[in-house]
Amino acid sequence: MSFARIARSSFRRSGGGIHNYTDGRRDLLSNGILIFKTPTTHANIKTWQNMAYFSVIRKLDLPSLGSSGIHMTPNYQYPSSASIAEVSDSDTECRTFPGLEATKQGEKPRVVVLGTGWAACRFMKGLDTKMYDIVCISPRNHMVFTPLLASTCVGTLEFRSVAEPVNQIQSALAKDPNCYFFLASCTGIDADKHEIYCQTVDHAGQSHEPHQFKVAYDKLVIGAGAEPLTFNIKGVKEHAFFLREVNHAQEIRKKLLLNLMLSVSPGVSEEERKRLLHCVIIGGGPTGVEFGGELTDFIKRDVHQRYSHVKDDIQVTLIEANEILSSFDAGLREYATQHLKKCGVQLIRQVVKEVDKERIILSDGTEVPYGILVWSTGVGPSEFVKSLNLPKSPGGRIGVDEWLRVPSVEDVFAIGDCAGFLEQTGKKVLPALAQVAEREGKYLVELFNRIGKQNGGKAYSAKGIPLGEPFVYKHLGSMASVGSYKALVDLRESKDAKGISIAGFISWFIWRSAYLTRVISWRNRVYVAVNWATTLIFGRDNSRIGN
Amino acid sequence: MSFARIARSSFRRSGGGIHNYTDGRRDLLSNGILIFKTPTTHANIKTWQNMAYFSVIRKLDLPSLGSSGIHMTPNYQYPSSASIAEVSDSDTECRTFPGLEATKQGEKPRVVVLGTGWAACRFMKGLDTKMYDIVCISPRNHMVFTPLLASTCVGTLEFRSVAEPVNQIQSALAKDPNCYFFLASCTGIDADKHEIYCQTVDHAGQSHEPHQFKVAYDKLVIGAGAEPLTFNIKGVKEHAFFLREVNHAQEIRKKLLLNLMLSVSPGVSEEERKRLLHCVIIGGGPTGVEFGGELTDFIKRDVHQRYSHVKDDIQVTLIEANEILSSFDAGLREYATQHLKKCGVQLIRQVVKEVDKERIILSDGTEVPYGILVWSTGVGPSEFVKSLNLPKSPGGRIGVDEWLRVPSVEDVFAIGDCAGFLEQTGKKVLPALAQVAEREGKYLVELFNRIGKQNGGKAYSAKGIPLGEPFVYKHLGSMASVGSYKALVDLRESKDAKGISIAGFISWFIWRSAYLTRVISWRNRVYVAVNWATTLIFGRDNSRIGN
Repeated sequence: MSFARIARSSFRRSGGGIHNYTDGRRDLLSNGILIFKTPTTHANIKTWQNMAYFSVIRKLDLPSLGSSGIHMTPNYQYPSSASIAEVSDSDTECRTFPGLEATKQGEKPRVVVLGTGWAACRFMKGLDTKMYDIVCISPRNHMVFTPLLASTCVGTLEFRSVAEPVNQIQSALAKDPNCYFFLASCTGIDADKHEIYCQTVDHAGQSHEPHQFKVAYDKLVIGAGAEPLTFNIKGVKEHAFFLREVNHAQEIRKKLLLNLMLSVSPGVSEEERKRLLHCVIIGGGPTGVEFGGELTDFIKRDVHQRYSHVKDDIQVTLIEANEILSSFDAGLREYATQHLKKCGVQLIRQVVKEVDKERIILSDGTEVPYGILVWSTGVGPSEFVKSLNLPKSPGGRIGVDEWLRVPSVEDVFAIGDCAGFLEQTGKKVLPALAQVAEREGKYLVELFNRIGKQNGGKAYSAKGIPLGEPFVYKHLGSMASVGSYKALVDLRESKDAKGISIAGFISWFIWRSAYLTRVISWRNRVYVAVNWATTLIFGRDNSRIGN
Repeated sequence: MSFARIARSSFRRSGGGIHNYTDGRRDLLSNGILIFKTPTTHANIKTWQNMAYFSVIRKLDLPSLGSSGIHMTPNYQYPSSASIAEVSDSDTECRTFPGLEATKQGEKPRVVVLGTGWAACRFMKGLDTKMYDIVCISPRNHMVFTPLLASTCVGTLEFRSVAEPVNQIQSALAKDPNCYFFLASCTGIDADKHEIYCQTVDHAGQSHEPHQFKVAYDKLVIGAGAEPLTFNIKGVKEHAFFLREVNHAQEIRKKLLLNLMLSVSPGVSEEERKRLLHCVIIGGGPTGVEFGGELTDFIKRDVHQRYSHVKDDIQVTLIEANEILSSFDAGLREYATQHLKKCGVQLIRQVVKEVDKERIILSDGTEVPYGILVWSTGVGPSEFVKSLNLPKSPGGRIGVDEWLRVPSVEDVFAIGDCAGFLEQTGKKVLPALAQVAEREGKYLVELFNRIGKQNGGKAYSAKGIPLGEPFVYKHLGSMASVGSYKALVDLRESKDAKGISIAGFISWFIWRSAYLTRVISWRNRVYVAVNWATTLIFGRDNSRIGN
């Protein structure tokens, strides 16, 4: 499997948009470990990372060395910059196309955005397109309203109610002559040339090789997302469902309905029926708990009414190594635990050792047969973020400073789940939450609009411009629904702070109202409301569409 | 490829539910031709068919030979009955399961329904479940509201708005202890034993062989549907989309959005872009014309607003060998032709010779490059209907008499696209329309409820009971939308009759109102209305979900 291929395939899962490209000195990829060869020294990523922040500080103190895309920083002086500057042979073959070359004087600066998640979309939504042109590169043409994704797995909400097309979020992408959305993956970055290399997505039944092309940027915003953590547990990638994309939810719904129907079939033994109807969730974070709550709602109403032959055999189990909802207030945690138990969810405190087709093996040797397995143990840096030759934050995300800039290279910014504060900033890496990503996107776009007004939009032209206040994240609180019209609302600013935390029906009402107002488009706001109403009145749709 | 496998795979496409099983004398299947070997004579299907109707007439004139599932008709006397009586070895291995054996005295008679299309669902909806138990076998758990399917391909309607879960149509399937819906295919029928043989559907990633089981019936209703006609044109099955199931519409929508996005990609030549954006429809029947109309609406509003870079390169072509909408009034045909041309649809009167990945070859040698190809040239008998050893109507459907009974076997009925009047009835085979199928389902369920009241529900027990008026189809008229808020309404009873026919906005309003009231559930009626409203206000959703 070629290097580019690895990056591309992992990219697609996370919905982000960037791949590794390091330098000409990078040659070996063995067992997932990148080895960099410099002319004089051999340095692995870690060593290099620690140097990177300082080297960029030096660089930024220098007087402006170039403008309008003419690069003058000597490579040898800034190895960290050079390290993502040289790209593979196939990338250098990428052609330039009209409208995507380096912008000329008098033209609007071009912002290239990688990804279509919370951070990237919030950024694009706010960008002043009178000042900037946008080019967005992502293998996914929509944003997913992730907090409501769990509801779509059982049909409480419909899939399209939680998907926002990116050219609705930023209409310039659809209309402006120099703005584009490309359904493509980024395969490389040349920070020196201020160019990225891309290829169009693979798709089933395509008759051609993917097209390759390059795009010059004045500013690059990486919002490429993260990937589910599997802790290298055997069998997880093959047999578990994740819950990060709309098509993941579609697959879960199809499997759930299939198992409900198959379990009725004559010839299915009692043991097999119980296995088919055993829904196991690994991970007791908000996603896992909300999905568990949705499942119990679905069972209580829809399975009892529509699959009465098997209604007593369905079982939900949540496996978590530690406490569920560990970031929530202790009282809320206790409430959630009791509530889930009351709803019939079996809680198991254990570590998963291995997963096979039909069975989970726990670390104490217990075998848990399952019919459907949803894995939601959080996210970590994706393979391509890992392989990017950029400074890294603790935990391996793309390291950024307080202004969300990636040091060591100019005009590159990172936001959302793929970005984290560098250790040297003295700030903690923020959790991978929609709230954080959205706030970062909002902060960065304000910064962009500000420097754009002062003619700092072009490549290498923002040097003298004051960036304003650094980014500070203030947590507004956490919410999680737990099923049966109950939710948790924790308004404390941090885990150890004091503040209001409530649970129950009022929280559920707050949870629904809050999300309904957060849904981005009016179209989807209508649909979320209509979906909720029809679910209440008619129950959930249980057509199983597709093979 | 085994015989059962052929039948099963073709079955899935049509959404119906029955396979061929002939007799022990049937041994050879070569090039799709079934050869029957009788101990004394060799008879091909055709000869046998012609005999079949008369043999059943004889049989039905006989006094009742059995009741309550005890079969007494000697096989040798009624070869046509015997011919579907013996089944393959694998079927005889099917086990019986509690609740699915032959019903005993005092138990309700069991009606087994194959399929979940218009006919089968209308039948099940009306069945008096105080009198009958129902078992429905189909590889699809929902009915598709086919007249509105074309609208879902471009997002005017959502997919789930046109799918009605079968256990919502007949709630007894979900609730009654002796009623079941099995997600399975029928693999054989033993008309003597009054049993059918089934196996659960294959599905992606399944870990077991499909389960096999048998179900005894008192009455069997075959509503197994039909299959798209491809006229054995090379490449059609491989490269064209059909438009019969919700997942076909999903695939068309995904492909359309993919091509729109790929065509913007740098590196795509002008020729390639034009190919990607060339939507070709083969077949000028109502489905083809309505899909063409939807496409032009989509282009006029959504492509112009959201894909402005390529809006001038998109093209719709409709290829039809004869006239479009041939069953409609001449004035309406002319109106539709002019309207489609005005909307930019290219009409080509030609025959398709061959289809490859990117090009259609017409019979005059012209090559037509395409990006998306939708094939809607009508339907014909499916492979399993063809292979069923039952009398056939002209055109190869399952032959039925005026009461929709399949002669030659007892207690077997056929409705919908898979059924046609036998030549001997002197009646024409009805067109494959939702209207016809629904009317047949309605007629048959009234007949069932009537004979049920007179204790004729059990196997072999309806002999002396008057069946009432035979089925007479009265055409209520045809409708087709042509895009841009225009439609055709043809209220003539037949092609040559006189009557009202109108075209334009009022027709469009009638078209929408008529279908809105015909949508089966209130849930979907709400959704169709909401979808129409949001399409009008916000435009169509263009998220491309899935790979």
